Formats: sequence, structure tokens, C-alpha cells
Amino acid sequence: MEKTYQQYSKEELLALQQELKARYAEVQALGLKLNMARGKPCGEQLDLSMQMMDVLSSQMDLDCEDGTDCRNYGVLDGIQEAKALLGDMIEVPPENIIIYGNSSLNVMYDTIARSMTHGVMGSTPWCKLPEVKFLCPVPGYDRHFAITEYFGIEMIPVPMNENGPDMDMVERLVSEDPAIKGIWCVPKYSNPNGITYSDETVHRFARLKPAAEDFRIYWDNAYSVHHLYEDDQDILLEILDECAKAGNPDMVYKFTSTSKISFPGSGIAAIAASENNLKDIRKQLSIQTIGHDKVNQLRHVRFFKNLEGITNHMKKHAEILRPKFEMVEQSLEKELGGLGIGTWTHPKGGYFISFDSMPGCAKRIVDACRQAGVILTAAGATYPYGKDPNDANIRIAPSFPKMEELKKACEVFVLCVKLASVEKLLET
Amino acid sequence: MEKTYQQYSKEELLALQQELKARYAEVQALGLKLNMARGKPCGEQLDLSMQMMDVLSSQMDLDCEDGTDCRNYGVLDGIQEAKALLGDMIEVPPENIIIYGNSSLNVMYDTIARSMTHGVMGSTPWCKLPEVKFLCPVPGYDRHFAITEYFGIEMIPVPMNENGPDMDMVERLVSEDPAIKGIWCVPKYSNPNGITYSDETVHRFARLKPAAEDFRIYWDNAYSVHHLYEDDQDILLEILDECAKAGNPDMVYKFTSTSKISFPGSGIAAIAASENNLKDIRKQLSIQTIGHDKVNQLRHVRFFKNLEGITNHMKKHAEILRPKFEMVEQSLEKELGGLGIGTWTHPKGGYFISFDSMPGCAKRIVDACRQAGVILTAAGATYPYGKDPNDANIRIAPSFPKMEELKKACEVFVLCVKLASVEKLLET
Repeated sequence: MEKTYQQYSKEELLALQQELKARYAEVQALGLKLNMARGKPCGEQLDLSMQMMDVLSSQMDLDCEDGTDCRNYGVLDGIQEAKALLGDMIEVPPENIIIYGNSSLNVMYDTIARSMTHGVMGSTPWCKLPEVKFLCPVPGYDRHFAITEYFGIEMIPVPMNENGPDMDMVERLVSEDPAIKGIWCVPKYSNPNGITYSDETVHRFARLKPAAEDFRIYWDNAYSVHHLYEDDQDILLEILDECAKAGNPDMVYKFTSTSKISFPGSGIAAIAASENNLKDIRKQLSIQTIGHDKVNQLRHVRFFKNLEGITNHMKKHAEILRPKFEMVEQSLEKELGGLGIGTWTHPKGGYFISFDSMPGCAKRIVDACRQAGVILTAAGATYPYGKDPNDANIRIAPSFPKMEELKKACEVFVLCVKLASVEKLLET
Repeated sequence: MEKTYQQYSKEELLALQQELKARYAEVQALGLKLNMARGKPCGEQLDLSMQMMDVLSSQMDLDCEDGTDCRNYGVLDGIQEAKALLGDMIEVPPENIIIYGNSSLNVMYDTIARSMTHGVMGSTPWCKLPEVKFLCPVPGYDRHFAITEYFGIEMIPVPMNENGPDMDMVERLVSEDPAIKGIWCVPKYSNPNGITYSDETVHRFARLKPAAEDFRIYWDNAYSVHHLYEDDQDILLEILDECAKAGNPDMVYKFTSTSKISFPGSGIAAIAASENNLKDIRKQLSIQTIGHDKVNQLRHVRFFKNLEGITNHMKKHAEILRPKFEMVEQSLEKELGGLGIGTWTHPKGGYFISFDSMPGCAKRIVDACRQAGVILTAAGATYPYGKDPNDANIRIAPSFPKMEELKKACEVFVLCVKLASVEKLLET
């Protein structure tokens, strides 16, 4: 059993530092240009959807089953068969879905923007209130936090545990403070720590008793079918249904998209919610647009056909992603296991591995990686305002680099973790 | 020379009314179902773009000229070649353009929504102001008015004349009232009256001295290349350039899309503005989305190739639209010419013919048409709050119906105009 770094003497640490510095200099000399920053599918994954470019052609009609010509204006909230397809995927009836354009992030942004100027189902517009707050499970998704920050919404971090957010804290805050209008959730294979909310957590969410009538759960179901293992998948309770059963049918907005299923940026996105919420949303939507891209909706329907089509497609994604995730985890285990200088998650799906360094090391690690040609998500990005109080969390995105590149990037990463940890220990 | 209805005696009017009523009853019995309400391209026009479904295939790369893989995330403000294509189309350098999703209406909505919550280039957010006003040239586009109404912005109608809006009034109001933050313009082949702003009008727009620093001209250049006659086209001065020359580079947002060029609802939209404005917009955009649909941008570029491609394509649209417009105008002239009960426009492009009845007749006409199975845009729709003070303006959209249907719809329309006019004259 190896010693932890904490058990090293000062002399041992200094010797180790010399050795690590020498290796770091060698790595820097390689002039690497690698990127593990964003949850982007790799080229091989994108190739899986290329047939989507063939399913519509000039020789076909572009009509829906109900005869609607998808080429023309109209159909505000999406074609029926796209609602059915995404509905099956996220376990929601088609009538509870509105199909949007290419980005669920944009749908979430619009949802907040609408609440700012028009309130929620008749509530006071948030821009007229002295303060608006959101709960932000941490670590979490930086782009969620960016939206709430952009609108001047105060963000309150809520720690994540292995079952989801700390529900004692969520229940208490939500029931006490009417300024709290929402909570950002990535409930399945969460970004970044890959956790799926437990049944108990979902039940407690559904039974929240918010002080604010316009409190909503922002349920970003981004990785609903993004499993890594066919025979070892996380199961998430369906939140709309649970909220309805708990007598809170209007308390949740559920977001989804095909961004990491077909082409990111050229997929289709959707919101699912109660009929009351959808009515409120359609009021805005009818002012905002005549309709979203129905041809692309039709393209997705004709390509995937049904849920089985999506499921089979996601298995192919998993075959590409799984070895990458496993390689990163093995590399971390082999190089850092037992050293006491880091812990990391073992997700069964999604796009990220979450790494926690010794407190106060994350920024140094990310910086050292950058200077050796390996780009990581900025340290702190997984916290509101970019401020990780422990300076410990780093999000690793293994999907985009080629296997060989990822291997190199991991080598650089573990080296930088060691280097930063030794420096830290020598400081104290 | 026929008598005008005003010259008829009461007895003559009563006899005419009997005759018209009989004909109306006959028409009603036909059970027609026709629609001249919205500016929708017809199927034949949509067929012109079907090859766009073939220009991308699984056998091709989907890379930009600069190597960007259009299938993946990224490129916030549009691929370079799409900027160049739309830039050429609207006479603006590519660096002054941001490419959006499928709808310029959505871009306009977002522009107002952003100004409400975040102001314009650092100005006070409009939602924090006691009042915000917009100038609305009338008759105008109902969906513009719907956006400003939705955000509680007070709309001030400004009469249109043959050169564009009444610029004396625009100059006076804009320079006097700092609550006036914008003006809606459809400067070419305007909706609904088909007018193109004169050079003098554009010059006066560019030289406006607004009291509000965050006043912007909302220049909806929806019909920039939508000519009906190859050899008789309206020419519109380029507003960004004119504003820059007049020392007001930041005073205008210019909107465009391919909605009535390729497929409505599956095209690409854009905003053009000064670098200062674009910087302000990108700040929001980077929070709102990771990027719009680049694959569809690429599809449009590969289909149209360049401005010549668009120009040739628009000639084919014109060949389909021209006979419809001419038929409507001939039908109006033949049946209503010289009767003193209506005037109408003779547009050289765009999507509409604007009809003005005798004051107080528009609602009756639209209602009578509806009851005979012909749907028109609601009377009043071309005015803010749906209130046409003269109850006279009716927007006719000849594009969508088949020629035979359009002929029938026109017969019903002129009959209803006559009927409503006689009723009106008998009242007084």
C-alpha cells in the first residue's frame, strides 16, 4: 500500500516535486493541444447520425401524418409525431410537450426571461420584485448558473450528495423564502458528478411546499437516455407524474433535447409541463414566433422512428463513450489511487467525470494543464459566480478527444494534480 | 364612365342591395373554404426549394470552409459563409451580421425582450422605466405590434404615405420624447401597402436626433429581394451605411430571413447592426445558446451558393406570384374601379395588396367574406391594438391560394365590398 502524500516528509515532498517538475517540463516541450473542457460528442459519434441527412429528399413529400406541409409556416408548438417521439423518450404524454428549436438551453433562457417580464401563470413579473433567488445544487452546470446570473437572480448553492441535492436544505429554504423562485436540477447522470436523483429525492421534490406560488423546479433532463452500460443503468422517477400525484402538478418544467443524440446544435429541444404551464408558455410563444423548424422535427422523426430507434442509437454512442470513460477512470486510479490527493466519480452515464482535488488546488491544476496544452473547464465553473469555496472541483469531459489524445491528456492531468498537491502540502 | 355609389339615389341603392344580397346568398351556398389571410408561400413556391433537401447527404462532409464541423456545438453567431451570403443579400458586410435560428420574428422578439431586461448598450432596462413607447407606421405588420403590446410598450401610430412614414411626425416625436425607444419599419415592399421608403425618407431616418440614447430603428427588411417584376424593381437605400454616414452608426437594427426565399419556418434569420450593437447582443447570445443550427446554415449556403443563386431563385418565385397579384388587381379594377368604394395598392414586390374601403366598412367586409367561406386578415390587424380608426384597411395576401381559388376569393371579396358599401351608404 502506497503512502498518501500527506504522509510524506518535507524532504520526500521536495524530492518528489523535483521529479514532477522535470516530467512537467518534458510534457510542456511536447507542445500538446488537447481539450477536455466541454461535453462535446466526438466526430465518430456525430457520424452515427449522418443518415439523418438522407431521410428527407427532394423526391419525398415533407408532410406530417396529419397532412401538414412541414415546409410552410405554422404549427406553433411542434408536429404531433415529434411530440410523441420526445414524449416517449422522456416518459411524458405528447400533449404535455412543446417542441422548440435547436437548443434546450435557449428554452431555459426563454423560460427565465419570460418569468422576468411576465411572471409565471399570472404572478408578479420577477423584474418588478426587490429580489429573486434560485437554488443551485453544486457542483452543477455552469450554463445554468450563467442564465440566472445574467438576470441578476441571487444564487444559493445547495450541496449535492449521492442521492441528489441536500433535500433538508431545499425543503427548508423553499418553504421559508418566497423570493426563491426556482432550483436548477440535472436529475440524471448529473452535470458534472454523474449522480441520478434517488426515488426518495424525487418524492421529496414533488412534495415541496414552496412559499412562492411561482416557484418551479427546472428539471433539465439532458441525459435521460445517455447510458454508458446497457445492463447497469440508473433509473429516474418521472417528475411530472410525481408532482401531479403529490398535488403539485404545475410545480415543474422539464427540459430535454436531442443535442447529444443526433447533432448538437442541429437537434430539436422541448419543454414538458402541465397544461396550465403550457398555456402560459404558448401565450408568449405565439408572440415570439410563428413556429419552430418543422422540417428538422420531421427529419428527426423519420430518422429515429420511435423510442426503440433512439435506444438502439444510444447504444452506439455508449460503445464509443464507454472506453473513454473507463480509460480516464483507470488512469486516475492507477496514478492517483491511494495518494490522498483526489477523489472522482464513477458515472454510469452522461458526459462528465467530476474530480475533487485537495482543497485549494483546482485552479492550480487547471492552470498547470493549460500551460502544458490541455484545456479543462475553468476551475470554479461548476459553482455559482464561478466560486468554488473549496477550490477543489474540476469537471472532466472525456467525450471529444480521440482515445490517444485523451490518454495523453490524462497523463498531463494526473501529473498536474500531483504537482499542485505537492506544492500545496509544501506551503502548509 | 360608371357612377360612383355615392351618386346613387336611395332607390337605386336599395335595388342594388337586393341584387347583391341575392348573389351573396348564391355564393354562400357554394360552401367555399378559401384563405387570403396570411403571407404564406404556396406549395408551388415551396417546391422551388426542394433540392435543398439533397445538398447535404451522409456521403458528404458537413464542414465549413474554415474546417468547422457544422454538426457539433459552437460558433455562436453563425458560420462565415452564411454571413457572407445573407450579407450580400442585404448589402451589409459579413462582420456586421449575426445569424440566428429559423425566424426573424423571434430575433425581433428577443431584441425587445433583451432591451426590457438589460437595456440597450448599457442604458436603463426598459422594465425599470415608467413608460416605454414605440412609433408604429400604419398600416403595418400585426406581429410587430403584437410584440410591443405583449411587453406593455405604448404604441403611437404614424401614418404612412407613398414615401414611407410621415417623417415630420417621426422627427418631431423622436426628438421630443425620451420614452420613445423605437420605430417598427418594413422599408421595402412594406407590409401591407407595398411601399418602398424613398431615398429622402431613408436619409431623414439616418439623421434622426432621438431624445433617447437607446432609441433604435427596427428595420425589418423582410422583402429585400422579393420583387414581382424583373425590370421594374424598387430600390431601397442601405440604412446601416446611411446611419454611419450621418454619424448615427448605432441607431439601427436590421432584420432579415430566408423565410419566403427557401422554406418558411425552416430558413435562417439574421440581424445586422454596428459592431457596438453586435457586441451588446453577443453578450446576451452567449448566455442564451451555444449556437444556432449550423447544419441548416450550411444547407442554405450550399443550395443558394451566392447572391446570384438567390436572385435567380427569386425570379422563379416572382413567376408564380406575379400572375396572382395581377389577377387580384385586375379583378379589383374590373369590379370596383370607378365606384368610389375602395382604393388599393399596386405593389412591385412583397406579399400583400392593401385595400382601403369606405370608412367604417372593413369589419363588415371581412365578416361578410368569412361568412361566405373566405378568410381575410382581421380588419384592424394592420393597426396597433387592432384598432383601425377608420375601419377601412384590409390586407389581401394573394400568395397562398391556387389561381382558381384566388379568383373565386376575389369574386367573393368584391361582392362583399359592394354589399358593405351599399349598407353603409343606406345608413347615412
